[in-house]
Amino acid sequence: MIRGIIVKQLTKAARLRGPGNVAGVLRAAAALAPQITIKHNYSSKAQPKLTSELYPSVKRNPNYKKLANEDIQFFQSILTENEILQANDKEDLAFYNEDWMRKYRGQSKIVLKPKSVEKISQILKYCNEQKIAVVPQGGNTGLVGGSVPVFDEVVLSVSNLNEIRNFDPVSGILKCDAGVILENADNFLAEHGYIFPLDLGAKGSCHVGGVVACNAGGLRLLRYGSLHGSVLGLEVVLPNGDILNSMHSLRKDNTGYDLKQLFIGSEGTIGIITGVSILTPPRPKAFNVSFLAVNSYEDVQKVFVKAKKELLEILSAFEFMDDKSQQLTKHHLAGVPHPFEESYPFYILIETSGSNKDHDDEKLEKFLESAMEDGLVVDGVVAQDETELRNLWQWRELIPESSQCQGGVYKYDVSLPLKHLYSLVEAANARLSEAALLGDAPKPVIQAVGYGHVGDGNLHLNVAVREYNKQVEKALEPFVYEFVSSKNGSISAEHGLGFQKKNYIGYTKNPQEIKMIKDLKTHFDPNGILNPYKYI
Amino acid sequence: MIRGIIVKQLTKAARLRGPGNVAGVLRAAAALAPQITIKHNYSSKAQPKLTSELYPSVKRNPNYKKLANEDIQFFQSILTENEILQANDKEDLAFYNEDWMRKYRGQSKIVLKPKSVEKISQILKYCNEQKIAVVPQGGNTGLVGGSVPVFDEVVLSVSNLNEIRNFDPVSGILKCDAGVILENADNFLAEHGYIFPLDLGAKGSCHVGGVVACNAGGLRLLRYGSLHGSVLGLEVVLPNGDILNSMHSLRKDNTGYDLKQLFIGSEGTIGIITGVSILTPPRPKAFNVSFLAVNSYEDVQKVFVKAKKELLEILSAFEFMDDKSQQLTKHHLAGVPHPFEESYPFYILIETSGSNKDHDDEKLEKFLESAMEDGLVVDGVVAQDETELRNLWQWRELIPESSQCQGGVYKYDVSLPLKHLYSLVEAANARLSEAALLGDAPKPVIQAVGYGHVGDGNLHLNVAVREYNKQVEKALEPFVYEFVSSKNGSISAEHGLGFQKKNYIGYTKNPQEIKMIKDLKTHFDPNGILNPYKYI
Repeated sequence: MIRGIIVKQLTKAARLRGPGNVAGVLRAAAALAPQITIKHNYSSKAQPKLTSELYPSVKRNPNYKKLANEDIQFFQSILTENEILQANDKEDLAFYNEDWMRKYRGQSKIVLKPKSVEKISQILKYCNEQKIAVVPQGGNTGLVGGSVPVFDEVVLSVSNLNEIRNFDPVSGILKCDAGVILENADNFLAEHGYIFPLDLGAKGSCHVGGVVACNAGGLRLLRYGSLHGSVLGLEVVLPNGDILNSMHSLRKDNTGYDLKQLFIGSEGTIGIITGVSILTPPRPKAFNVSFLAVNSYEDVQKVFVKAKKELLEILSAFEFMDDKSQQLTKHHLAGVPHPFEESYPFYILIETSGSNKDHDDEKLEKFLESAMEDGLVVDGVVAQDETELRNLWQWRELIPESSQCQGGVYKYDVSLPLKHLYSLVEAANARLSEAALLGDAPKPVIQAVGYGHVGDGNLHLNVAVREYNKQVEKALEPFVYEFVSSKNGSISAEHGLGFQKKNYIGYTKNPQEIKMIKDLKTHFDPNGILNPYKYI
Repeated sequence: MIRGIIVKQLTKAARLRGPGNVAGVLRAAAALAPQITIKHNYSSKAQPKLTSELYPSVKRNPNYKKLANEDIQFFQSILTENEILQANDKEDLAFYNEDWMRKYRGQSKIVLKPKSVEKISQILKYCNEQKIAVVPQGGNTGLVGGSVPVFDEVVLSVSNLNEIRNFDPVSGILKCDAGVILENADNFLAEHGYIFPLDLGAKGSCHVGGVVACNAGGLRLLRYGSLHGSVLGLEVVLPNGDILNSMHSLRKDNTGYDLKQLFIGSEGTIGIITGVSILTPPRPKAFNVSFLAVNSYEDVQKVFVKAKKELLEILSAFEFMDDKSQQLTKHHLAGVPHPFEESYPFYILIETSGSNKDHDDEKLEKFLESAMEDGLVVDGVVAQDETELRNLWQWRELIPESSQCQGGVYKYDVSLPLKHLYSLVEAANARLSEAALLGDAPKPVIQAVGYGHVGDGNLHLNVAVREYNKQVEKALEPFVYEFVSSKNGSISAEHGLGFQKKNYIGYTKNPQEIKMIKDLKTHFDPNGILNPYKYI
């Protein structure tokens, strides 16, 4: 256990208090692993404009057939009533047409929710022959408008494919339907002493299949690596309706090109993932979380290098937050006390996880002592129990929601070499100030804040706004992408391309890469029926 | 440190002795990580027959142009004298025509060793236009005949591309040429406190690019995962000569299909890897190795599950060996004492690595005590210093060489669900006995032995023979593949398909997968000039 003397050294003025007033956001979890669920919360926000109105330069592709009665009859011939939703007086299909951020709104009049892979196969075969455009949809928690229609595409939701298929407690290999909610999968694994090798804020809504289709990164990537390493097999319905059954459960298999890799991160453009086989690690028995204050981004980097070397095998998250992000979160969590009474320029959240609490405590303690002696860490707290641990995590995990709650947020999720990571936030604020867009109301921008997974070189730049506004968008794009490109970063670290970033891929990928990506799209989906107007 | 009382408990009769007499095999390493290098050793073995004679049903594809003077003149126009080797009275190019196992022999008359990526690009562009078949070659340590010509293909070796390009000590990202020898890369990393996330016996000869092209698994996969997770970028020359510069150094990048994944494990059939960008982890400070005796394969599995849960974050290798493999190795290392005087049915080698030796010792000690109390482990030794650690590893690492040294070896590298892993070895011995092929000389088969990476579900079945023999091959193939297929395993866990397994992919992959793999081959290499007669 963390000993009293160290806690005293670390906490100085600030001590963690009780569970606070964040009801409805934090919930009891199946195990110690921090789990925070962000819920859809449409009610308080205005319905977005139609995407077609907001982006008049994007035109409906006339090659796609407009849905006719005969098509609906075909769908009705293979699906039951419960598997089809049609727009009518009572139902505008808003949930399926609008993205979680309420930035995009499509006009689909029909949502198909097949209960079997074979039905999905029949639907895609038909749509491919008839040239009917289709948007695959999982939990619809994507952040780049990739999972909602742009015009009248048919929405094909996998939410009715939601069974755990198989779990082997010796190897830790889980096989499940694509529509299983991530949190449900993780709770199931917890019962068997295993953990899903990925965690993210939307886990209560997002689907395992969607997570794979978007190659989500999330909070455990530092420890468990990317899905390209942990996914062992996929079942995918191809655009022509063929079913690729590649649900292997082998950790090693060098027989041919690794087909599944192409679908990881393909955002539903070349196939619909219907099943996932994934290697899951044993659930750690001990978790520690410490929340640290540092004086500069320079010091954030130094603490990271030090943590990587000294905490090595037990380091499972290294997140940083700027003070501006904490101010927004304090505002959102009105009354909930922050770990520190004073403000500091930057904060770091370090999570360790391992098999022996005493060993982990000792390592963390030694590391923190040394980091304070070096003057890198100026204040810090260590969670003493599960409640405190969750409370510390909320100050990182609720930033997205806090950035959005005063009107809206422009989110940029970029990869940058570590040394340049924070300079983008400074540059964005400078630019918005110069353009007289940032400040008190009625100026549209509240603040650009930065936080993210330092361990993965992944910055989240959130521009909190009072309303979505073309001027702000113009000030930010392509400015942000140009900045990232100039530092050889990626304009999408983990959120994907979707609708939002389709036209900006050239800031990260070169013409040869783009050509090859386009050629593969055509190779797999010659009629282009899957998730059009997006990705590439 | 491991305390005396425990060592006593564990070692019983057997104690580890000095470094033994394995000169020339073990060598001083740059750091504590166990490193054993297997050297090419042609001299003692007969030159293999020509592949074309051994496999008369495989015909040279007449669509490929036979090399003419004009072609050689073209190569000479872009390459210097040192970059071209031609067969003549003194030079038969045996090193490039024969595989390490001496099972295959091609008839190439020319080896190109360009010193730049641009030259490789020019060569492939020319060969593609002229329809000249090309075999890409790295360190030529492959085990399935994938890196040598079958007929008269031009050998294109990347061995002259052998520079470290860049290393970032903050992120741990290494960029290097494909022809850098794996051991050199690891030694370089050791100087900076990092480690190559893959290790294998051939590390003194194999190339980083070859390792990626073959998606090698090796000894550290249990800890660091597969190359699909750790490779961040590649530079590849495509069959038409185009250079795909995808040398990204970002841990996260979700902008388009992950092109590099297709080349990882493509065995030189759709492009020649010329550069690799890879994420490397900090080098552990502490290594422990224990060598355990167990009574049954059932107990091997139980010890594995226990180790995975109790050693969790510090477990870095879990290897098993049957007694027959140890008998062969004892014969090969004549006079070197085995860790145990008595024989046991199975042995396990467990390696841990971490940041704190005391913690690791304590975890290992507790685990071993408990495993002995449970009756799972019947005897065991723990290395007390680096020399002992290396000596223990040799009993696992020298099995391949020991299997081969009495004449030859048929190697099968398969993935199987853990419960079926060892049954293949028993089935193979039974079959060879029934066919009256196994026994004392002059019977061709000495023994089928089993060992491998339990942690990865990866069995190496080695059939040690006094000579290569068609009857033995017929008894083993497709028997082994059928067995693996019946258990939903993979006929190639880590060695790849190459020439040996080209016709057997159907035992692991289904027709839809095979069709997609073939389509991708055609998509990337419509003239089929790269590494023909192999893979698919």
